[in-house]
Amino acid sequence: MSETKTQVGIVGATGYTGVELLRLLAHHPFVEVRAVTSRQEAGKAVADYFPSLRGAYDLVFQAPDDADLSQCDVVFFATPNGVAMKEAPALLAQGIKVVDLSADYRIQDVATWQKYYKMEHASTDWISKAVYGLSEWKRDDIAAAQLIANPGCYPTCVGLPLLALLQQNSLKTDAAIIADCKSGVSGAGRKAEIGSLFSEAGDNFKAYGVAGHRHLPEIRQTISAFAPEIAQKFTFVPHLTPLIRGMHATIYVELNEGVDALAVFQAAYQDSAFVDVMPHGSLPETRSVRGANTCRITAYRAPETEANQWIILSVIDNLVKGAAGQAVQNMNIMLGLPEQTALNGMPLLP
Amino acid sequence: MSETKTQVGIVGATGYTGVELLRLLAHHPFVEVRAVTSRQEAGKAVADYFPSLRGAYDLVFQAPDDADLSQCDVVFFATPNGVAMKEAPALLAQGIKVVDLSADYRIQDVATWQKYYKMEHASTDWISKAVYGLSEWKRDDIAAAQLIANPGCYPTCVGLPLLALLQQNSLKTDAAIIADCKSGVSGAGRKAEIGSLFSEAGDNFKAYGVAGHRHLPEIRQTISAFAPEIAQKFTFVPHLTPLIRGMHATIYVELNEGVDALAVFQAAYQDSAFVDVMPHGSLPETRSVRGANTCRITAYRAPETEANQWIILSVIDNLVKGAAGQAVQNMNIMLGLPEQTALNGMPLLP
Amino acid sequence: MSETKTQVGIVGATGYTGVELLRLLAHHPFVEVRAVTSRQEAGKAVADYFPSLRGAYDLVFQAPDDADLSQCDVVFFATPNGVAMKEAPALLAQGIKVVDLSADYRIQDVATWQKYYKMEHASTDWISKAVYGLSEWKRDDIAAAQLIANPGCYPTCVGLPLLALLQQNSLKTDAAIIADCKSGVSGAGRKAEIGSLFSEAGDNFKAYGVAGHRHLPEIRQTISAFAPEIAQKFTFVPHLTPLIRGMHATIYVELNEGVDALAVFQAAYQDSAFVDVMPHGSLPETRSVRGANTCRITAYRAPETEANQWIILSVIDNLVKGAAGQAVQNMNIMLGLPEQTALNGMPLLP
Amino acid sequence: MSETKTQVGIVGATGYTGVELLRLLAHHPFVEVRAVTSRQEAGKAVADYFPSLRGAYDLVFQAPDDADLSQCDVVFFATPNGVAMKEAPALLAQGIKVVDLSADYRIQDVATWQKYYKMEHASTDWISKAVYGLSEWKRDDIAAAQLIANPGCYPTCVGLPLLALLQQNSLKTDAAIIADCKSGVSGAGRKAEIGSLFSEAGDNFKAYGVAGHRHLPEIRQTISAFAPEIAQKFTFVPHLTPLIRGMHATIYVELNEGVDALAVFQAAYQDSAFVDVMPHGSLPETRSVRGANTCRITAYRAPETEANQWIILSVIDNLVKGAAGQAVQNMNIMLGLPEQTALNGMPLLP
Repeated sequence: MSETKTQVGIVGATGYTGVELLRLLAHHPFVEVRAVTSRQEAGKAVADYFPSLRGAYDLVFQAPDDADLSQCDVVFFATPNGVAMKEAPALLAQGIKVVDLSADYRIQDVATWQKYYKMEHASTDWISKAVYGLSEWKRDDIAAAQLIANPGCYPTCVGLPLLALLQQNSLKTDAAIIADCKSGVSGAGRKAEIGSLFSEAGDNFKAYGVAGHRHLPEIRQTISAFAPEIAQKFTFVPHLTPLIRGMHATIYVELNEGVDALAVFQAAYQDSAFVDVMPHGSLPETRSVRGANTCRITAYRAPETEANQWIILSVIDNLVKGAAGQAVQNMNIMLGLPEQTALNGMPLLP
Repeated sequence: MSETKTQVGIVGATGYTGVELLRLLAHHPFVEVRAVTSRQEAGKAVADYFPSLRGAYDLVFQAPDDADLSQCDVVFFATPNGVAMKEAPALLAQGIKVVDLSADYRIQDVATWQKYYKMEHASTDWISKAVYGLSEWKRDDIAAAQLIANPGCYPTCVGLPLLALLQQNSLKTDAAIIADCKSGVSGAGRKAEIGSLFSEAGDNFKAYGVAGHRHLPEIRQTISAFAPEIAQKFTFVPHLTPLIRGMHATIYVELNEGVDALAVFQAAYQDSAFVDVMPHGSLPETRSVRGANTCRITAYRAPETEANQWIILSVIDNLVKGAAGQAVQNMNIMLGLPEQTALNGMPLLP
Repeated sequence: MSETKTQVGIVGATGYTGVELLRLLAHHPFVEVRAVTSRQEAGKAVADYFPSLRGAYDLVFQAPDDADLSQCDVVFFATPNGVAMKEAPALLAQGIKVVDLSADYRIQDVATWQKYYKMEHASTDWISKAVYGLSEWKRDDIAAAQLIANPGCYPTCVGLPLLALLQQNSLKTDAAIIADCKSGVSGAGRKAEIGSLFSEAGDNFKAYGVAGHRHLPEIRQTISAFAPEIAQKFTFVPHLTPLIRGMHATIYVELNEGVDALAVFQAAYQDSAFVDVMPHGSLPETRSVRGANTCRITAYRAPETEANQWIILSVIDNLVKGAAGQAVQNMNIMLGLPEQTALNGMPLLP
Repeated sequence: MSETKTQVGIVGATGYTGVELLRLLAHHPFVEVRAVTSRQEAGKAVADYFPSLRGAYDLVFQAPDDADLSQCDVVFFATPNGVAMKEAPALLAQGIKVVDLSADYRIQDVATWQKYYKMEHASTDWISKAVYGLSEWKRDDIAAAQLIANPGCYPTCVGLPLLALLQQNSLKTDAAIIADCKSGVSGAGRKAEIGSLFSEAGDNFKAYGVAGHRHLPEIRQTISAFAPEIAQKFTFVPHLTPLIRGMHATIYVELNEGVDALAVFQAAYQDSAFVDVMPHGSLPETRSVRGANTCRITAYRAPETEANQWIILSVIDNLVKGAAGQAVQNMNIMLGLPEQTALNGMPLLP
């Protein structure tokens, strides 16, 4: 029976996006994870390494060179930046579909990418063929794509509300757009770094990347697709907050006279299962999407300001809609499956 | 179609066990939640009160007197102690099955119950008819029962390993049995109390209930069923630890010569989907069962001691296997459904 | 010897600002806490109620009516809003100095106060005599005052950087000013409320008060003192973040051409012991001021924007510089003592 | 003026015990920190590396070989195990006093040390000259010592109550002694390790070192000094709990007939400023000693057991009384200063 399922591989499966892919795919009715690779943990059973997966997988991590990814129909790259651009092209050449959760194919302008990621790009010819997988805005392109550049977490959380406003030309073109974003610590990945230690990141709050975070050009690229003239008016400050999962964007915009942001969102997302536009007066909280592929959005008219200033609130789980969940959503679209397949798990609250 | 589903009611659905029942039942293929009651939130939509449930339920909380629980096949009591003993009998008299997540029917000895719960018991005749629902040890009784006393979280976490040893007469009868237990804060329920505030329970660790916690007689009753002579040798200290969900029991026992605790566990639970006996050298952690109905257990011979002293480690999610999950498991058994129905969600890690 | 010390009373000492005053004053060389009141805990020893204070205080909480506050030289009100306005006037009439940590005397416009605090003001005549105690900006007024309206935590964290820019006319008058603020949960006080529970506020992030928080008019009043025309351009969104203590303000402003925010801060605060202007490239974090009376500030030019857009980062401990510490600082100034007396404790890191 | 102060050096000052020594010594009236070393951060200003120390220190980290430790009167080793045993002897030979916060000189039996620390000991001759610095029990020896082996955190938290019972021969000799201990994550040190990440250790609870933690032989050595026959009856299980600082020991002992543990503690510690024996019914919590050098202890007779079984609760701040605080206390004793000098800071609560 399993031979009729779509065969899936995961490159770099020991990180947080890797284990999250494994969690989401464990009960996917139409796919089977066939191969997981890890340079460091090769030979170790997945269920020994991640006890939460005991009983769900018999797989053993394979060294990248030993893994027979060419037997897969779809391969996810859950690797650090700089790996997929080297290893994906060989798979793509065999006709295998690739969903890259890293940043390698997200930025169309190579110079900008190289400036922000501080390395040479190794497969520039694939950049223009990659589809930027903000699922709700690119369903047709994704369905036809072979290579998906899965969006960053901040660009997803900020992009979903912003794109609706951009599409409707709602933004006043001479005002600043400010995205003040807060991320849980898992967004830094599963890397042994002092700054991500419990005793450093716990009971602490700080901004980071203020001088220019890598997701700044990614969001500006998204804006530019609709309104290049305002991309430079966009300011973005990420912050690290002591929660494991979860991302909250507070976005400050001035809208054209008479525009109601909430109405724009409701119109844009009425048919999108994973974007929940909450009613006026709501306060989206990160835990309301913990473990789920949902983005919840609402908007407030800024109190007692003269201009048509709005405050937009948007939350996602950075590991789900901000990474592995959107990757599975994109895979579902690529495979012609119902978009929600294996993504209907309820948020864990409390 | 829904009329063919088992109709379920939840009394007191605004607490943590209530919302957890709603989460677990949201995708249960054979049951439908028909009524949820709340004295305080009557008239409010469930999805407004718990935004994590938006999209999954159209239900509105009803005042207890307005709710038509008599149309239900099964009613869960997710109420404070003292409610089910008053309200369940009328439902039971109509033939409705009841799963009581409170402590009302857990203790067979009325005097002990009244001493520890500091009130008169209102339906003592139902106590002896109630089946104590430690699912793995009472499957046949549960299948035949009309009223389930769903076990407490500590008694589940401690009882699962202890019962296996008791059944095999593995415990040395003249030695102390010590259960040092640690619970996440959600175990205190969703009550507005100073001691459960983030700024009180956060970044803090303490014991509580040392002079005699209510789960002490419940565990002693479990022990007594097998070996009444050692029940008084059992000491239990619960602690509050700054995590939301999760419970860890560290149990210290002296075993009869030659007995290997791990081998006993493996034999006892080889056919139980929800008890995972981990191999020697494992360190069960609470997050490995976060959101799941699994109890993970392992055992160590105490290093360099003369006696056959053992250290047993056991973890559950206090809201799932320690409450709502076991309640659903018991309901499945009562209804003749596969035990794991709706309980196969993967743990959320990280 | 103690009779030569300044005698101090604390009204409402069982909350977080109360216990923090007791911590800070425990080793103050020139004052002695003589009376602490609590309606609920009257008769209980302070050291039994707050074990962290064992050994430091022999005091017993007194009922408000029993406490002989008239023997005090200075009385702190660490009470909910609405208490000081009723009880302080009688003490003030006796010549006693009062530092009110609540909001009762912060807003000069009574109508605005009543709108935001939803009650009648009970001693409007004292409002205009109260000095708003943002210590660094009002030293002379504070020294001469009898009644101090101790600033709110957000107004302190936002006001310290903003006032320096306002004083220098650095802000572009036609641009929005946005303060995106994040507070630890202790900011909500030591009240038994569901929303402040560990299992609600933990591992969660959300905005609140978006439609108009009480500190909005307080900050606007501060702005208006320098530039009334831009007060309405100020937007403020507070957020709740899962840390116990700590507050972080991220402030977005457009400055007049050529102005360097960091240089403005350095000039403004070179002689202020409790405002630490950090060098360019720094990332102030809340834990760097945990338990200390320090505000750390820095500023960044927003990357790659056309306008002279700046990002200002400011952190305080909401219970110290945002409440009890600034109150002690103000008392020191009122008493003619060195401003730093009893406030030199080092931050606790980690 | 500073030349009359005792000159102090800290080797390895970038870890948690190092920064804690700097915090505690910042306002010590009789000592001056003259040199701090760090292999990795040499050349960096202490105040840049630890912003919490801005304003308190002008020091720059020096490479170990460049630091002129020979000008110091006292040198603290806040280094990983294995460093002090190599570097301390040269300083000791110059007559410098050394307080070693690592484990190098704690175990008198070299073979045991080498087994548990998995390396050759490099200066075995100094082991027998080292005084094990459990301050309350060795004041005279410490005063006369040149080399202090500062105790581990668990051995301090467990040893303080246990030694009082051992001294009075209170323990029943044929019963198990069990210490179930819980530590905050800072106990693992400031090392970049996956297991200490916020997203791994946060919202999680687990045991570790169950098969034989390094502090097991250290505590057994302490027991053996009084009662070698019961050292092998001691079982110790450490657990990792999601708090930054804090340690809680729950100790289970059977006492000789008629012995009251609480009375024993009160007698033993009536003159010790840093051991607070709390009254019957108290629940010592870790936050009640956060940042302070205090150990709080109480005891309960186990409810409804036949034997004279007792439950002992003991809390410390692992970085203060469990490390840097006790090190300063020991230095004070060595220098003939009042034991409490610079150690009177109040705990930070909340």
